[in-house]
Amino acid sequence: MTKTLRVGLIGYRFMGRAHSNAWRQAPRFFNLKAKVELHTICGRDAKGVQAARAQLGWEHAATDWRELVESPLIDIVDIGTPTFSHAEMAIAAAQNGKHVLCEKPLGLDLKQCEAMFAAVKKAKVVHMVCHNYRRIPAIALAKRMLAEGALGRIFHFRARYAQDRLADVEFPLDWRLQKETSGSGVHSDINSHIIDLARYLVGEFTEVCGVVNTFVPERPLAASLAKGVRKMGKVTAPDSAVFIGRMENGVLANLEATRYALGRKNQIAIEINGSKGSLCFDFEDMNKLKYYNGDDPKDRQGFRDILVTQRDGIQPYVGNWWPPGHGIGYEHTFIHTIADFVNACVEGKPVHPTFEDGLKNQRVLTAVEESSAKGRWVKL
Amino acid sequence: MTKTLRVGLIGYRFMGRAHSNAWRQAPRFFNLKAKVELHTICGRDAKGVQAARAQLGWEHAATDWRELVESPLIDIVDIGTPTFSHAEMAIAAAQNGKHVLCEKPLGLDLKQCEAMFAAVKKAKVVHMVCHNYRRIPAIALAKRMLAEGALGRIFHFRARYAQDRLADVEFPLDWRLQKETSGSGVHSDINSHIIDLARYLVGEFTEVCGVVNTFVPERPLAASLAKGVRKMGKVTAPDSAVFIGRMENGVLANLEATRYALGRKNQIAIEINGSKGSLCFDFEDMNKLKYYNGDDPKDRQGFRDILVTQRDGIQPYVGNWWPPGHGIGYEHTFIHTIADFVNACVEGKPVHPTFEDGLKNQRVLTAVEESSAKGRWVKL
Amino acid sequence: MTKTLRVGLIGYRFMGRAHSNAWRQAPRFFNLKAKVELHTICGRDAKGVQAARAQLGWEHAATDWRELVESPLIDIVDIGTPTFSHAEMAIAAAQNGKHVLCEKPLGLDLKQCEAMFAAVKKAKVVHMVCHNYRRIPAIALAKRMLAEGALGRIFHFRARYAQDRLADVEFPLDWRLQKETSGSGVHSDINSHIIDLARYLVGEFTEVCGVVNTFVPERPLAASLAKGVRKMGKVTAPDSAVFIGRMENGVLANLEATRYALGRKNQIAIEINGSKGSLCFDFEDMNKLKYYNGDDPKDRQGFRDILVTQRDGIQPYVGNWWPPGHGIGYEHTFIHTIADFVNACVEGKPVHPTFEDGLKNQRVLTAVEESSAKGRWVKL
Amino acid sequence: MTKTLRVGLIGYRFMGRAHSNAWRQAPRFFNLKAKVELHTICGRDAKGVQAARAQLGWEHAATDWRELVESPLIDIVDIGTPTFSHAEMAIAAAQNGKHVLCEKPLGLDLKQCEAMFAAVKKAKVVHMVCHNYRRIPAIALAKRMLAEGALGRIFHFRARYAQDRLADVEFPLDWRLQKETSGSGVHSDINSHIIDLARYLVGEFTEVCGVVNTFVPERPLAASLAKGVRKMGKVTAPDSAVFIGRMENGVLANLEATRYALGRKNQIAIEINGSKGSLCFDFEDMNKLKYYNGDDPKDRQGFRDILVTQRDGIQPYVGNWWPPGHGIGYEHTFIHTIADFVNACVEGKPVHPTFEDGLKNQRVLTAVEESSAKGRWVKL
Repeated sequence: MTKTLRVGLIGYRFMGRAHSNAWRQAPRFFNLKAKVELHTICGRDAKGVQAARAQLGWEHAATDWRELVESPLIDIVDIGTPTFSHAEMAIAAAQNGKHVLCEKPLGLDLKQCEAMFAAVKKAKVVHMVCHNYRRIPAIALAKRMLAEGALGRIFHFRARYAQDRLADVEFPLDWRLQKETSGSGVHSDINSHIIDLARYLVGEFTEVCGVVNTFVPERPLAASLAKGVRKMGKVTAPDSAVFIGRMENGVLANLEATRYALGRKNQIAIEINGSKGSLCFDFEDMNKLKYYNGDDPKDRQGFRDILVTQRDGIQPYVGNWWPPGHGIGYEHTFIHTIADFVNACVEGKPVHPTFEDGLKNQRVLTAVEESSAKGRWVKL
Repeated sequence: MTKTLRVGLIGYRFMGRAHSNAWRQAPRFFNLKAKVELHTICGRDAKGVQAARAQLGWEHAATDWRELVESPLIDIVDIGTPTFSHAEMAIAAAQNGKHVLCEKPLGLDLKQCEAMFAAVKKAKVVHMVCHNYRRIPAIALAKRMLAEGALGRIFHFRARYAQDRLADVEFPLDWRLQKETSGSGVHSDINSHIIDLARYLVGEFTEVCGVVNTFVPERPLAASLAKGVRKMGKVTAPDSAVFIGRMENGVLANLEATRYALGRKNQIAIEINGSKGSLCFDFEDMNKLKYYNGDDPKDRQGFRDILVTQRDGIQPYVGNWWPPGHGIGYEHTFIHTIADFVNACVEGKPVHPTFEDGLKNQRVLTAVEESSAKGRWVKL
Repeated sequence: MTKTLRVGLIGYRFMGRAHSNAWRQAPRFFNLKAKVELHTICGRDAKGVQAARAQLGWEHAATDWRELVESPLIDIVDIGTPTFSHAEMAIAAAQNGKHVLCEKPLGLDLKQCEAMFAAVKKAKVVHMVCHNYRRIPAIALAKRMLAEGALGRIFHFRARYAQDRLADVEFPLDWRLQKETSGSGVHSDINSHIIDLARYLVGEFTEVCGVVNTFVPERPLAASLAKGVRKMGKVTAPDSAVFIGRMENGVLANLEATRYALGRKNQIAIEINGSKGSLCFDFEDMNKLKYYNGDDPKDRQGFRDILVTQRDGIQPYVGNWWPPGHGIGYEHTFIHTIADFVNACVEGKPVHPTFEDGLKNQRVLTAVEESSAKGRWVKL
Repeated sequence: MTKTLRVGLIGYRFMGRAHSNAWRQAPRFFNLKAKVELHTICGRDAKGVQAARAQLGWEHAATDWRELVESPLIDIVDIGTPTFSHAEMAIAAAQNGKHVLCEKPLGLDLKQCEAMFAAVKKAKVVHMVCHNYRRIPAIALAKRMLAEGALGRIFHFRARYAQDRLADVEFPLDWRLQKETSGSGVHSDINSHIIDLARYLVGEFTEVCGVVNTFVPERPLAASLAKGVRKMGKVTAPDSAVFIGRMENGVLANLEATRYALGRKNQIAIEINGSKGSLCFDFEDMNKLKYYNGDDPKDRQGFRDILVTQRDGIQPYVGNWWPPGHGIGYEHTFIHTIADFVNACVEGKPVHPTFEDGLKNQRVLTAVEESSAKGRWVKL
């Protein structure tokens, strides 16, 4: 008989919506090894969480996350709250024997991440950080090609995560720009994504050198704006970050995260150059992977626009959706993530990226911060 | 109290999956004027439809579409079957007072389309043809810009719907390549989509001249392949079609539909040129609309890549999804279609494209066929 | 000892500048089989032609083209004047035993083209129409790939030559919009280019159906504007043209020429689809050829952007210029044309496109005009 | 009466060809303030330089550059030799009162550059470093837009100069990979170009941190290969370099130079993000400038592909060439450079980039080298 996994989700805003959708949709498009029950959604605001419950398709609503993580009715705890709360929730969930899926970045700092990884390891639960971009079909295809050696020796890894909302100096100060709630601001928030992709696709960083930066030091407080006044608050976390690095096997890395790139709405631009080929990707055109094959005949070499929408198992994940050329969107990356996570929970097997990946990611984030503070390279 | 609309869907393959998903998802992302109940899914094969019911999220399964359209438990009949069956089903649904959403093309031929439109008009039900591409956000934005006059006098409408699966001569003969089941093959199947977009965006055709064509006259029968033999069957419907035309206000039109364009997986490439600006679109990059504004300063004019993912009501439909730059996919076009259809059913108002649009579309399809047969222009 | 070919050029405006540049530059970058002497440039206005002589690098200036074509000091006559004058000049040149390079379109009409071809054949001189786009490196590479069979059976040929200057209704009436001087206006002027590319790359047309069209029937006379008044004149030649056709081996063709496509400055967009691959080209990005190879592994197929700038004989023509990635421009197509023409003159061998190609091109142009007048298909 | 400037060019290989072409072509397309006489080309190999003289269009050939720079028959000395020889030649030329155009990078190191700048300043001659990319029309347009403030406050400058020939480990060791001849290898050779563009477009660097790197430490010696043996030599200069930096006004910079990016033939990819707009450029598509205008209506903002080919003074330089859409190529950047240099020589006015720019460029190059050696940030 098919097992049923009962899910409790904490958080109902942006990530809450994306995760809820994924929990609802995964069983419709993927042949999961367990049934999934959208048991309880949890948030601090009783009215808000009730509305979310109805809108997002959950059976129950709760306001106390501790009750949720302790409930014997829950098998999986999914954490979609701001960063500062991850550690406490994830550790409690693990201690209660729940499998844990946690939004990125894993924690506020190294200490939290270490404690979180220790907790899930000790509890022997399945753990995963929701770096959803690993499961963009184009990225999964890139991974497969890299694993096959299609690119040969890797020389360069280059990535930029660029958005533009902070280019408007009136964009209000929110939790993402404050140290206590976000850890390291834009650096934690989106550099963590491309660090994850670097590690996934190419390997570990060995040393880094960079800057975490704040272009606009004060912004109007969101709460004040809501009340019709304009009170300024201090931006205490970086709003941009750039670093270069060395990775295993001599790869040179160059990563940049910013919300000041006017016109870039959610650009995750990656380029990997190897001795046999190159790959490029941009999330704003997420159904494509660009590939240059150095072994093509010399007169007809060129970057190919691989439309990653082929069925019949030809390309990863995407075959479960629509016919070729009928692209998918942002939310599908969460569905793929949750499909793999569910199967791992059933099988009790690790599923990447694990909390250990989250911890290693944090080590890179922290090393860049240290480098920025000291003005020199930092080894990992 | 919020009304509930009970839906019966006929068909559970490609379109059945896409429509089911849309019925499930529309209430999650759009503030509909009624609740939607996924009441019954219907298909001829009892086992198949039961599996689909579970997989696609319907309450009941049925094998006799006549029972469905007559059932007092059903408010909306959604038809997602092959073309030849549309007329009979839609007419019966209308006669039973159901609102009808019907897959494109509306019917096999003019006669069917006329009868269908007459039936829904007589029954005073809400009727809509599922030309889902009208509700791609980029197309909806294009429509708004055209309606505002942003392009001035229109000179050219140019569209190509190109796929590549028939370039493989071993691709089996299916219902889409047979006259009795598909009407006019690739011409009906995909030319109808770009005719619909031409009419929606620019206006009516006044005369056309074109060819419906068959590149490969025989193909292996799918049924025979399933049995491990290779028996050939005759392709009796066009597998490609090209036509030029004149539209209202002197617009020159050029439309092409083919499944022989290797590398084009689902290219719907449109270009509209007017005296003040131009627009371009390609479904393979569906979150973008290209726009050239002839009023920009002369030294900095150029086609803009508008990423149609802006929230806060800035761009149509897409604000109900994710933040800017977080694109959507193919299936969302159905969700937008069904959201608008549901609201129209509640309000008892027409919702484009109506069966009248389906009929007018068929007039163009038929005129092109006639032109092809006679080797000359045909007036509409 | 190296032979010297003495050139006489008639015309010193747009084409005069482009041809002069090509005569000057060809020997600098190509190892020609003869020396080239820029002997005489000829134009009706004495002052204008003297200024052009100095600016463009010719030894002598002349005002009477008859003297030029009769002069024993001239070996090659290069005709860069408006269309209406080509026939008289080219025939006289041939009768005087000169090799003739003639701008496109070859003549005003079929009769002229026939007489021109007859004259050069009779005179046994080398003759070439200056369809310079054949010698864009990307087009020459496409030709080589097609000749090798890299695309398999060809299904579709699609081309559009689009500019935008006539979208401005104040753009003055010039010789290109008058029947007596241009033949068939935009149809002759730029459709002839893509007809030439169709014939070069894919083969002969067997029947065509199309329209030659005039969007704006009256325009201010250039001469009147110069005098500060605004007198209107009648546009007597088409300002746009669209046609579909059938070519040898069942290829479906679709060609369009317009100067009403706002934002398209000199778009020559071509797509060829075959059973094994597809090719695309756009002159506005002339150093690239897009290629889809149906034999690539299924998970990594995609249109390649071949940057056609490889040296060492890898790609045609371009190796004589700069290192890879250092692109060339419009004028280079003339240099390649003239380099090949010079070598053909030395060897006394035909060089494509010959006057026969010009004549065959005119047959297509004329058939489209006839089709437009009669509203039906016309066989070639 | 029009002045004549007599030019002496030292070097006849890649840069010799490009400069010769520019000297020949500039007067044909630009209305220069002086006549230009291609007087003498100079190279060490008598046979080679004689062949070059004939091929490239010079009157005389010489083998001793000292005679050239001392000759009273020469007004301008143009230096197109490998880096190590620049200083000696340029200083001697200046001391002899010649105007000097010198290939980039200006010198081998800071000391040379300082001496060179001192010499031209003392001699009061006109001096220019041939950073030809400043005069790509798209870059000149970008400069104009930036000067107008069209981008507002600048946040990010990002550039990558990427080629791929060294990805082949068999590519031979040449002067560009040796310290004594090239200074700092790929860093000097191509990072200098994007440092120049950064300084030109955005401003001065205030501190930098980076690595100069060598991926492949040994390569076959070109000379040995010519003799049919394969003797390895040590790569003594960087073959790649990456650095981040801070510029005036708080701009964050990120620059990378490499010849290991397979598929990138001559990519000079630049992105500048400001509070009002963004600009992007890629030399492999050099006739385009991408521009995002934050002041466009919110629903139709997007990166524009400005085709920089407009005449009538609308866009810089390009109006002297061909009609809109008829692009230009690599060599034209030298023609524009030389046209401006000639006019500056006539007027005795400075012309950017001056030797002072070359010196400031070298300061950045040197600071990056120092940073790489010390593993920390270096102030400028």
